[in-house]
Amino acid sequence: MKIYDISVTISPNLPVWPGDPAVDLHQTDFMDKGAPCNLTFLALNVHAGTHVDAPHHFMNDGRTVENLPLDALAGPAFVLHLPDSVNIVTAAILETSDIPPGAERLLFRTRNSAIWQRGEQVFQKGFVAIAPDAAEWVVRRGVKLVGIDYLSVAAFGDPLPTHETLLKAGVVAVEGLDLSRVPQGRYQLYCLPLKLRGADGAPARAILVG
Amino acid sequence: MKIYDISVTISPNLPVWPGDPAVDLHQTDFMDKGAPCNLTFLALNVHAGTHVDAPHHFMNDGRTVENLPLDALAGPAFVLHLPDSVNIVTAAILETSDIPPGAERLLFRTRNSAIWQRGEQVFQKGFVAIAPDAAEWVVRRGVKLVGIDYLSVAAFGDPLPTHETLLKAGVVAVEGLDLSRVPQGRYQLYCLPLKLRGADGAPARAILVG
Repeated sequence: MKIYDISVTISPNLPVWPGDPAVDLHQTDFMDKGAPCNLTFLALNVHAGTHVDAPHHFMNDGRTVENLPLDALAGPAFVLHLPDSVNIVTAAILETSDIPPGAERLLFRTRNSAIWQRGEQVFQKGFVAIAPDAAEWVVRRGVKLVGIDYLSVAAFGDPLPTHETLLKAGVVAVEGLDLSRVPQGRYQLYCLPLKLRGADGAPARAILVG
Repeated sequence: MKIYDISVTISPNLPVWPGDPAVDLHQTDFMDKGAPCNLTFLALNVHAGTHVDAPHHFMNDGRTVENLPLDALAGPAFVLHLPDSVNIVTAAILETSDIPPGAERLLFRTRNSAIWQRGEQVFQKGFVAIAPDAAEWVVRRGVKLVGIDYLSVAAFGDPLPTHETLLKAGVVAVEGLDLSRVPQGRYQLYCLPLKLRGADGAPARAILVG
């Protein structure tokens, strides 16, 4: 049994969505300077780094992040590898893929994961995302959670259709995963977002066990 | 199989350690006002709510939170109920308790859990903590992780001995748990802190499966 950490490290260098504030993570109290203990302060938009979207991110129906069902966030998951030539994940690609019937949680490893491995600090607009027809495919299959390895499930410049399809159906969207070290296959996923009252999303730590 | 959420909900009303800033959690962008999506901002000391301490909290030896071993944070755990009459968890109490031999992760449910259930917004100095001799007992037993249901493993006003004993030995300290709904017994724990580069601790979401 092996544990894979599929979360990116949160630091002020983390690329963030254009317009969002940079991550503020800094030590406030220093034992070296006489403080009784070291203390650290964190400030960020809740969509920084590895995080989940709640329906409230694109809808005003009151489904906020602290109420996302834990039995969607934890359980069996399938990691699908997509070749570097894939620019967007379509329904046609999923239809002919190795996804096992009945898979309830799907994580897509694309060429995006290499962005994290390179330590790229500039936001990359050309990331691989999930096409609206693939979001519909996911919903039709009864998938509870879908994850991607850059900062949005939807293509840059066209966020609404993919997000809306997934979130309206109650599919948890996990964004900002680093799947670079994970072979294709079946795992147990534990994706645990902070329990933030009334928020439209939350930073998360996510692991795969398998 | 049931999942217990043992994390407290993070909000501006959460009591914080005296001297620490209040939690700032507020919506910055509103679809109601024409924004393309809702967005939320979070700012907090990393020891707010349910969180873990890394050795760097009380030591300057470079063991920061992003490097805590996942195989300590996830795995079999035992939840021990302590009666409301217990003011501090001592080695003598643990020695005669129902803790099974070889238990690697221990969570102590005390009268503290009722503080969260009451929704108490004022920091409570009289919380039940772990005595230094109980910390030594935990280390001697080879325990990897120990958790308590208020904001410190150590008594208010005497933080050093308990923290130092645990953290020096590499025992992960989990603080701010709400164990009020969890029966005594064995579970699988998944305590996943944010992966914060160089920090002395991190807010976490923690669940028990059992």
